[in-house]
Amino acid sequence: MKIRRSSRLVGMTHYLLHHPQQLVSLTFFAELYASAKSSVSEDLGIIKQTFEQQGIGTLVTVPGAAGGVKYIPSISIQEVNTTIEELCSLIQTPDRLLPGGYLYMTDILSNPNYVNSVGRMFASIFGDKKVDLVMTVATKGIPLAYAVANYLNVPVVIVRHDNKVTEGSTVSINYVSGSTKRIQTMTLAKRSIETGSNVLIIDDFMKAGGTITGMKNLLKEFQANVAGIGVLVEAVNIEERLVEDYISLVKLSEVNEREQLIRVEKGNFLEESFMKSE
Amino acid sequence: MKIRRSSRLVGMTHYLLHHPQQLVSLTFFAELYASAKSSVSEDLGIIKQTFEQQGIGTLVTVPGAAGGVKYIPSISIQEVNTTIEELCSLIQTPDRLLPGGYLYMTDILSNPNYVNSVGRMFASIFGDKKVDLVMTVATKGIPLAYAVANYLNVPVVIVRHDNKVTEGSTVSINYVSGSTKRIQTMTLAKRSIETGSNVLIIDDFMKAGGTITGMKNLLKEFQANVAGIGVLVEAVNIEERLVEDYISLVKLSEVNEREQLIRVEKGNFLEESFMKSE
Repeated sequence: MKIRRSSRLVGMTHYLLHHPQQLVSLTFFAELYASAKSSVSEDLGIIKQTFEQQGIGTLVTVPGAAGGVKYIPSISIQEVNTTIEELCSLIQTPDRLLPGGYLYMTDILSNPNYVNSVGRMFASIFGDKKVDLVMTVATKGIPLAYAVANYLNVPVVIVRHDNKVTEGSTVSINYVSGSTKRIQTMTLAKRSIETGSNVLIIDDFMKAGGTITGMKNLLKEFQANVAGIGVLVEAVNIEERLVEDYISLVKLSEVNEREQLIRVEKGNFLEESFMKSE
Repeated sequence: MKIRRSSRLVGMTHYLLHHPQQLVSLTFFAELYASAKSSVSEDLGIIKQTFEQQGIGTLVTVPGAAGGVKYIPSISIQEVNTTIEELCSLIQTPDRLLPGGYLYMTDILSNPNYVNSVGRMFASIFGDKKVDLVMTVATKGIPLAYAVANYLNVPVVIVRHDNKVTEGSTVSINYVSGSTKRIQTMTLAKRSIETGSNVLIIDDFMKAGGTITGMKNLLKEFQANVAGIGVLVEAVNIEERLVEDYISLVKLSEVNEREQLIRVEKGNFLEESFMKSE
């Protein structure tokens, strides 16, 4: 085998993985590697086949003069299953239980491996929708939002509870926390969202959905659209759920502080991705 | 050319890129691709050569029964130069100027491409030090910290200004902001850092260095060590700098609100990496 082709395969794989959802012209690769377009095209065929076989994603070819190739990340059903099972068993360890029935999840959200897996999962399920931005609320949702945005190759906007001088002019709304019924404020820099943008909302935890409803209302102020909602963990046994259409990875079915018990089940992610593939 | 080898090259490149700083045994790849260790070893040679030629990083081989191969990300001097120049020209646009001489940087920190480049730069300059954790303070430093942690394959700890119930027991310290001289509080979950950990501090902006000094003091409380300090932008013309030993990408040399002027220069990153390569 010629070193040249091997080297091109390695280099192109690296480039595509680092530029997801981005159209790359064959000319770009041909010039970068001083190779014929026909060889580049053959290489892309091999990369596409391997990506698909190994559940990494796929390459979409756009024909024509302005065409090229685009890497769409995805994840195999098996990997989704393994990751969700791993998350479930991690989350149900009793030493996560904090006073008030809250859960300590910082260690999971600190780990780039889990964060990236979650990002890949959400990016693959929302990848066929038009997403211009990923939105989350400070602080815990931030790593997940960036991981999703990374695979979708779009910016992130972070809603804050305070009003920092470094944001410039801001838009604020009040919202009612669904579970505690407290009135809170949400703030977002005015220049962060353009009118008509399609925004994917990502958060780490959803109880009744007050915070997510707040973000939806904030998007209305910007005349932007909700492209989807994804949460890592949702609590069940909620009297009144404020949000309907969302994707979750893990469902918290029981938290019993007295008996130091956490019970979890898989979220609706698998049902949704199963329905899509039918 | 055999499809098998090409496919292995693509798959192994993907695997290594997603598992930086992690020892992968030859047996693992040999079993994954049902191939001889000698073929896998040859493939790794090709990948190593390409990674080095294209400034992606290198592969380090650890011999012996418990050995294997480890991908160490890096970045070429040219790419560092281009990225820092791009950041400089982005940052000096006058419409970033906010009341009080602050700068709007949210758009840069929202963009996964910039965030990843910054992450790769810091990971490559601190990659030869022992780093167990990356630490930052909420909110703006978080994406940069995750990007660095991603390339170093270590967890992130986020210091907060408030005390959330979802953190469990916490350690708090008071510190004096270097520029405003206000007393502020910093909080970190008790279970987030083990004694003796080596911690890399990453932040988006450093004025006098009060916040970073606060993080250093917090690390003392945990009996942890500072492995390094990296900031995206440092302000110059500071009367009394509280932090000495840090790496910056961009230096803000002048901010004139009246004349709507921002002047920047390159940070000390290049000097430091130049000294290292001598």
